[in-house]
Amino acid sequence: MLLSKLVCERMKEVPQDAKIKSHVLLVRAGFIKQVAGGIYTMTMPCQKMSLKIQKIIREEMDAEDGQEVLFPVVMPRELWEQSGRYSSIGQEMVRFKDRGDRDMLLGMTHEEAAVHLANHTVSSYQQLPMMIYQLQTKFRDEARPRGGLIRVREFTMKDAYSFHCDSADLEKYYYRMYDAYYRIFRRIGLKNFIDVKSDSGMMGGSVAHEFMLITPDGEDSIVFCNDCDYRANMEVAVSVIDRPEAEDEPMREIYTGEDKTIEEVCARLNIPASRTVKAVVYAVKGDSDELVVAFIRGDLEVNEAKLKKVLGKNVVAYDGGISEDIVCGNIGAIGLSDKIVKVFDKSLEGCKGMVTGANKPEYHIAGVNVARDFGDVTFVDVAKAAAGHRCPVCGGALRVENGIEIGNIFQLGTKYTASMNMTVNGPDGTAFNPIMGCYGIGVGRAIGSIAQESNDEYGLILPMSVAPWQVHICALRYDDDAVRSKADKLYADLRAAGVEVLFDDRNCGAGVKFADADLMGMPIRVVISPKTLAEDKVEIKLRREKTAERVDLSEAVSEICRTIEKELEALK
Amino acid sequence: MLLSKLVCERMKEVPQDAKIKSHVLLVRAGFIKQVAGGIYTMTMPCQKMSLKIQKIIREEMDAEDGQEVLFPVVMPRELWEQSGRYSSIGQEMVRFKDRGDRDMLLGMTHEEAAVHLANHTVSSYQQLPMMIYQLQTKFRDEARPRGGLIRVREFTMKDAYSFHCDSADLEKYYYRMYDAYYRIFRRIGLKNFIDVKSDSGMMGGSVAHEFMLITPDGEDSIVFCNDCDYRANMEVAVSVIDRPEAEDEPMREIYTGEDKTIEEVCARLNIPASRTVKAVVYAVKGDSDELVVAFIRGDLEVNEAKLKKVLGKNVVAYDGGISEDIVCGNIGAIGLSDKIVKVFDKSLEGCKGMVTGANKPEYHIAGVNVARDFGDVTFVDVAKAAAGHRCPVCGGALRVENGIEIGNIFQLGTKYTASMNMTVNGPDGTAFNPIMGCYGIGVGRAIGSIAQESNDEYGLILPMSVAPWQVHICALRYDDDAVRSKADKLYADLRAAGVEVLFDDRNCGAGVKFADADLMGMPIRVVISPKTLAEDKVEIKLRREKTAERVDLSEAVSEICRTIEKELEALK
Repeated sequence: MLLSKLVCERMKEVPQDAKIKSHVLLVRAGFIKQVAGGIYTMTMPCQKMSLKIQKIIREEMDAEDGQEVLFPVVMPRELWEQSGRYSSIGQEMVRFKDRGDRDMLLGMTHEEAAVHLANHTVSSYQQLPMMIYQLQTKFRDEARPRGGLIRVREFTMKDAYSFHCDSADLEKYYYRMYDAYYRIFRRIGLKNFIDVKSDSGMMGGSVAHEFMLITPDGEDSIVFCNDCDYRANMEVAVSVIDRPEAEDEPMREIYTGEDKTIEEVCARLNIPASRTVKAVVYAVKGDSDELVVAFIRGDLEVNEAKLKKVLGKNVVAYDGGISEDIVCGNIGAIGLSDKIVKVFDKSLEGCKGMVTGANKPEYHIAGVNVARDFGDVTFVDVAKAAAGHRCPVCGGALRVENGIEIGNIFQLGTKYTASMNMTVNGPDGTAFNPIMGCYGIGVGRAIGSIAQESNDEYGLILPMSVAPWQVHICALRYDDDAVRSKADKLYADLRAAGVEVLFDDRNCGAGVKFADADLMGMPIRVVISPKTLAEDKVEIKLRREKTAERVDLSEAVSEICRTIEKELEALK
Repeated sequence: MLLSKLVCERMKEVPQDAKIKSHVLLVRAGFIKQVAGGIYTMTMPCQKMSLKIQKIIREEMDAEDGQEVLFPVVMPRELWEQSGRYSSIGQEMVRFKDRGDRDMLLGMTHEEAAVHLANHTVSSYQQLPMMIYQLQTKFRDEARPRGGLIRVREFTMKDAYSFHCDSADLEKYYYRMYDAYYRIFRRIGLKNFIDVKSDSGMMGGSVAHEFMLITPDGEDSIVFCNDCDYRANMEVAVSVIDRPEAEDEPMREIYTGEDKTIEEVCARLNIPASRTVKAVVYAVKGDSDELVVAFIRGDLEVNEAKLKKVLGKNVVAYDGGISEDIVCGNIGAIGLSDKIVKVFDKSLEGCKGMVTGANKPEYHIAGVNVARDFGDVTFVDVAKAAAGHRCPVCGGALRVENGIEIGNIFQLGTKYTASMNMTVNGPDGTAFNPIMGCYGIGVGRAIGSIAQESNDEYGLILPMSVAPWQVHICALRYDDDAVRSKADKLYADLRAAGVEVLFDDRNCGAGVKFADADLMGMPIRVVISPKTLAEDKVEIKLRREKTAERVDLSEAVSEICRTIEKELEALK
C-alpha cells in the first residue's frame, strides 16, 4: 500500500476527549474517525488489524469444533420476550418499531437467537455437545461511551454459544474455551493479561470468568492476593476483614447535632470509622417506593454488584428524596421502619461498642452490641474488597489493580433453554433442556487493548501477528531517481515474497516520515535513502527496538522475511 | 465437518411462503432459518459460502486499489441531513432515538459515511483517485421482503466508493469496476448474467449499470433487442413504437355511457386500443392535493420510473378518491382543469383520429388530431417498452426477460461531495468537489442467485469456488467396522490434503444420505460402502453429473484433489 494514497489522517494534536493512551494513539495514527459518540469508522489499517484478529479467533473457535453462523443484528421483540430480557434489559438496548409497527431491537448479544436456531434443529442428545459462534456487529447504547475503541456503542464481537447434555460436559468444554481464550490473547500479542472470576450480570448463570488486560487506565478493578493465586473481579471479590477488639458497653442515645457523615460523627466522638455502622440507602430500580438500607461497618464500602445479587433486584443509589421512613444522616439499624428492606453485611457480625444512627434527627446510639441489640438478623457479604484486606484463601494481603475486560466466558445453565422451551431427547427418549455456555470477545476492544499495552511516547508498537502491514518502508529523497528505482524494486520484491508492506512514497522530509512510521507502529521499519544506497544497503529496525542495522540491499528481502518469521514464531 | 453434529435442519416439505426455487432450496437444505420477515440466521454452510464470496470480492476490490474500511451501521441524523437523504428516503430507512434522545438511523448505504471519512482526511488532488469499500451489515425495511435471500431486510453488502478529480477519471475507474464485477460473478459461479443500463434511483447521479441474473423468477424486467446489443432495465428502456396510419377527421363528442375503460370504449366503437388516448392518474407522494395525469396511447403502459424522472417528483397511483377536477373514466387531454399537471407521452405525437375522454360523464371525444387539437404541448418518453416494440438502436424486435439484480454501479458525480462540502485542492490550489462513483454487491443475494441458477429437482448444485465444503462423503453402513475405519481415514487424509469435507457419519440408510447430499449440493460426492470396499474402491460423482466413477481407495485423495483443481480452474 502506498502511504500517499492511504485514507488515514495522522495528526500531532491529542484529541480533546481522549483520556487514555490507546484512544489518543488510534485517533492520532488515523486508525479511527469518530462519527458519533461511541461510533467510529475504521480506516484501512484498523480494519486490517480487525480482520487479522478475526482470523485468529476463527482458527481457535474452529479448533474447538465451533460452527460459524450469522445471526441477525435486528431481532423481533417476541424472541426476547421468551427469555424475559426484553423487559429486564434497560436503555442500553435499542428498540424501534419497523414500518409494520412491529417492535424490533438491535441485538446486544445473541443467546435468544442461538436458542432459536438450535431449537428443533437440534433434537437429539447425539447432536450434543455443539458450539455455534459468529462475528457480528453489536450495538449497545452505552450511557457514557469513552476510551476510543475501549467502550464504544457499536462494535464487532465474536460471540459463541455451546449446548451440552449435562453440567459436567459444559464444565469440560468451558475450560477448553478458557484455554482457547488464552491462546487467542497471546496470539494477538497481548502480554499482561489474566483471568478473574466474575459476576454473570445480565447473562444469568453461575460460573463466569473475565479476561483482563492489566493497565492503570482500566475501568475494572481486580483484587489480587500478594501471596497466593486468588484473584477476582471487584464485583465478586471476597475479602476477610479484621474485627477490632472492643469492650461491651451499655447502649445509649447520644446527641450528635448536625454531624451526619461517618467522618463527622467519628471526629465528634473521637472513634475510628470501624466503630460505626454505616447505613447506605438504595432505591429498587423502577420502583421508587421500595427502599433498601445496607448496613456495613463504617470503614468499608458496599459492593453494589453483590448487593444486587443478594436482593435479586436492580438497585440504584437513593437520590435523597423525601421519605417518611428514614432520617438521612441518622439512619440506624435499631428501630428502623419495617417498610424498609434491610441488609446486614458480615463485617458487623459480633461487633461491640458500635455507633449507629438513632433514626431521629441530631441523635445517634452508642454502645451497640450487634449480637445483643440487632435481634435475629442474617448477615451476608455485601462488602467491597480493598487493598489491605486479607485473602479469603490464604489470609495474605490483598491488592487492587485496574484492568480492561478483553473477553468473558459464562456457564449459563438452562436459563435460556428452559425459558425458551428448547428440549432435546435423551438416550431413553426423555426430553431435557440442554445446558448452555457462552463466550465473548470484542474485536474492537482487542485493538484498543493492544494499542493500550503496546506503545511508547512516539506511537503504536504493533505485534507482527495483527499489524496491518508487517513492514513500513521509508524512502528518503524519493524524488531522487536512484532511491525511487531501488525503493520501488524493494517494495515489489517484498510483496512478491508475500510480505505486507506500507510504502511511504511521499516527497517529504525524513522527520515527517519517521514520525509517521513511529506513530503508526508497523513492526519493521526499512529506510532506503541516498546515504544507505551509497553503501548499497538499507536500514532495518524493529519498531520496539532503539537500534537499526544496515543490511545489503541484495539481502534485504530474505533478512526481512526471517525477521517476520521470528516475530510470528514468538507469538505462537 | 461431521454431518451428525452440523446445526442445519434439512426438510422435505416446501416452506409455505417460498415461491421461488432458491428460497425453497436454501430453507429445505437448512442453510437459512427465518427469525422475522426478511430476517434470517445463516447456518454454517450458508455462512461459509458467504465468507468465500466475501473473499473473492475482497480480492477483486483490492486488485482495483480498494482500501477496506468499516463504516458504522448506526449513524446520526446530522450526517444524513447534510446530503438531504434523511428526509428524502422513506420508511425503508429505520430511524430511532438513542438513550440521549438523539435521532439515529440504520445505514442503508454509506455515501454519507464515505464522504465523512474522506472529508479533511483527503485534502489534495494528489491523494486521488482513491476507492474505499466495506463489507458490512445493512438493514432496509422493505415493505414486502420475499424470495428467501433475494429480497431481505437485513443483509451483508459490499459497498465501495471512489473519489476522482474529474469525470474522465471516474469514467475510466468505473469501467475497471465494471470489469471487476464481471470477474466476481464469474468466479462465484454465476453463468447467465448480463449488465444493463439502469436508473440511479435514490442514489442520485447519471450513468448507472445493474448486473442481472437472467431467471424467470426475477422481479426485474430487462428489455433486450433480438438483433443488436441493446439492453436495458425496464425502468430506463427506450423503444420505438409504430404509429398506425389514420385519416384526419373532425373532432366530435360521442356518447359512451358507462363504458370507461380502454377495453370497453374500444369494444363499443370497434377501434383498436392504439386509436385511444389513455389517461393515467397519479398523486404526488406526500402531497395528496397535487394530481398528475399522464396521457399515453391506449395500447401502451406508463413507465413510472421514467415519469418520476420527468417530474422530478415521487408519484403513486391515484387511489381514485374524490377530486372536483377529474371525471374518472372520462378524463381527456382537451379541456382538463389547469390544476392538473399533464404529461404527454411521445407515442401520441402526430396521431390522428384518436378517441379521448370528454372530461364529463358518459362522453368521449372522437376524431382527435393531436397536433391540431392538443395545443402547444411537449412530448416526453414515459412509455414502458414491451415485447414487439422496436429497438431504439437498430430497429430490431425487442423482447423482455426477467432478472435478479446481483450488483450495481453508479457514477454519482458531485451530489454528495457538493452537498456535504467536501473539497480538495487542485494543482493550482483551487478547491473543488471530487467526483464520486459507488459500487454495490449484496452477498446474501449472491448466495440466493447461485441457488436460483444452480440446482435440479433434487437440490442445490454448488460451484466449487463457493461451496461450503468441496466434498461430501457418504459412508454407507458406517456401523460396519471396515467402512468406519476406511471412511474415517479418507476423511482425515482429505483434510490433511487441504480439502474441505462434509462427512456424513450418521447411522442411517443410503437413501437418506444421498437425498441430503443432493439437497445440500456439495460439488463432489464420495460414497464409501461395503460394496465399494469389496473392490477396494470408492465412488466419486460430481453433483452436476448423472454418472459416478469408481476409483481405487489408494488413489481417491489425489483424484479428488485433481477434480477440485479442474473445477476451480474452470471458474477463473
